[in-house]
Amino acid sequence: MIFPEIISKINESSKIAIVSHIMPDGDSVGSSLALYNALKKAGKDVCFMLDDNIPKIYRFLKNSEEVQKPGKFESYDAVIALDCGDAERLGKAKLYKEGNFVINIDHHISNSGFGNINFVDSNASATGEIIYYLIKEMNIGLDTETAECLYTAIVTDTGKFQYSSTTAATHQIAGDLINNGVDIPLMFERIYQNNSKAKILLMKNALNSLEFYHNGSISCISITAEQMKDANAADEDSDGIINLARDIECVEVAVFLKELETGEIKVGLRSKKAFDVTAVAVQFGGGGHLHAAGCTIEGSISEAKEKVINAIIAEYSHIQ
Amino acid sequence: MIFPEIISKINESSKIAIVSHIMPDGDSVGSSLALYNALKKAGKDVCFMLDDNIPKIYRFLKNSEEVQKPGKFESYDAVIALDCGDAERLGKAKLYKEGNFVINIDHHISNSGFGNINFVDSNASATGEIIYYLIKEMNIGLDTETAECLYTAIVTDTGKFQYSSTTAATHQIAGDLINNGVDIPLMFERIYQNNSKAKILLMKNALNSLEFYHNGSISCISITAEQMKDANAADEDSDGIINLARDIECVEVAVFLKELETGEIKVGLRSKKAFDVTAVAVQFGGGGHLHAAGCTIEGSISEAKEKVINAIIAEYSHIQ
Repeated sequence: MIFPEIISKINESSKIAIVSHIMPDGDSVGSSLALYNALKKAGKDVCFMLDDNIPKIYRFLKNSEEVQKPGKFESYDAVIALDCGDAERLGKAKLYKEGNFVINIDHHISNSGFGNINFVDSNASATGEIIYYLIKEMNIGLDTETAECLYTAIVTDTGKFQYSSTTAATHQIAGDLINNGVDIPLMFERIYQNNSKAKILLMKNALNSLEFYHNGSISCISITAEQMKDANAADEDSDGIINLARDIECVEVAVFLKELETGEIKVGLRSKKAFDVTAVAVQFGGGGHLHAAGCTIEGSISEAKEKVINAIIAEYSHIQ
Repeated sequence: MIFPEIISKINESSKIAIVSHIMPDGDSVGSSLALYNALKKAGKDVCFMLDDNIPKIYRFLKNSEEVQKPGKFESYDAVIALDCGDAERLGKAKLYKEGNFVINIDHHISNSGFGNINFVDSNASATGEIIYYLIKEMNIGLDTETAECLYTAIVTDTGKFQYSSTTAATHQIAGDLINNGVDIPLMFERIYQNNSKAKILLMKNALNSLEFYHNGSISCISITAEQMKDANAADEDSDGIINLARDIECVEVAVFLKELETGEIKVGLRSKKAFDVTAVAVQFGGGGHLHAAGCTIEGSISEAKEKVINAIIAEYSHIQ
């Protein structure tokens, strides 16, 4: 038994709330709906509350339409918080942890341990991976729709099985979900073949701005506030566009400059191999990881570009 | 034992040639190098011959530099043909099947059975999956470099575990390869973060040409012969670009028009859901599958575009 305390608390509870973080992603939505569907099947009076709307691409998941906005404070036998590093990230749903018994299940190593029970497994590639084992251990039969929720959680949080968090266990679970009826091409169509037109327009604008520096080892793309407006783009429509600039041969550092409506420039940085982009981002008050970092700079796109490119070239000279 | 005949033939052979198909891909290169490395380790006098060069992105695989061009006919105790649907696809390497004992290992259902022993498993997602089991069954220890070859074969031939060929067994193998030391982020960097600059230029040109028809359900992109030349692009640099047009919400059919130097237009068609693009392609002498088809049309890009879009709209009216 991996989850004796959690399972015994769930078993003795009849009214249960599942909550997850603001700006929901595939893992928060997928793991929450998987547990929601499983607990419903087990006869529990369960509700799933999110502060934000479920992103459109995940609305094919079973019972996604049953998600509720956190309203006035209510009493539950247990509140289960999923994929949420700290209570603040629950948005208005954090209401439901006050005075309720909280089970905190997550895979972020930074989790603050805000629950009465805390199960944080940083070796799990996704919270969906933990919920898979929990459902198995509770002996709630895994139906295809619930398996789809778990597959969505895992495939999105591992970037299609590419991040370092992907383990043999991740693949073993994915295989078992296929055995439980998940239709892989259909899942990919729903999740990955549904870019917004706005995103495609932004990709076009970004590629039209592509420039190389430092013998082609630095690539730079940008999007203006006007282009965002003309494309009728939401903030999330520019997600991942920096990868176009990164995924080019010889490129070691990619820069993405996005002009905000405030006139500030949001800078995204990505790298391959040993180049530490955080060393650049911190110079402008930002931060991040070895291969992904960001910061915000005052000024025009061209001013920000000059500052950032110069800082990257200087960082190269430190390495050499 | 799945491979008794094959293993006994390999065991009694000392001089072995491995051959695979022209226009090599991740599976042909990966499965061939995996078997090459394993048989070397088992003490065999083994050579690996390919008619074409190994694509640059796969040259990080162990012993890829030891590949040879098929030269004059030689005698081998066994010739092992991998991932090759028929002998013609071996190019000049088919020389080595004449007068030699041929073991034909493949996962294409259409395989012509040209070997003395034929092992064709159409349930395998990649020939690399079959070679994984063969190496296991021969009790040749799987080192990390050989595991990388097998992982490359599988991740590329399944489109990152997305095609319908991806099974629980595929994931189980991927997990075992991770346990054998494969560094997943490094593999993705090498295979997927190395687009040529020419490909990025073509993507830019294609997105600049993007148009929608039939209430946005048909998308169309094109690349001119001049743009191919200006980008110094190889034919393979336009591979996959049609996905940009397909992976848009509401789009059901995507069209990619590529002007050839001969002045003809090569047409690629992709669809989602139930729309059968082959029904369109055959009208122009082409062919394909439900969701992927192609044909070649005489005339200008705009002439070809009109013909193809009209044919797609007519096909819609047949469906409704």
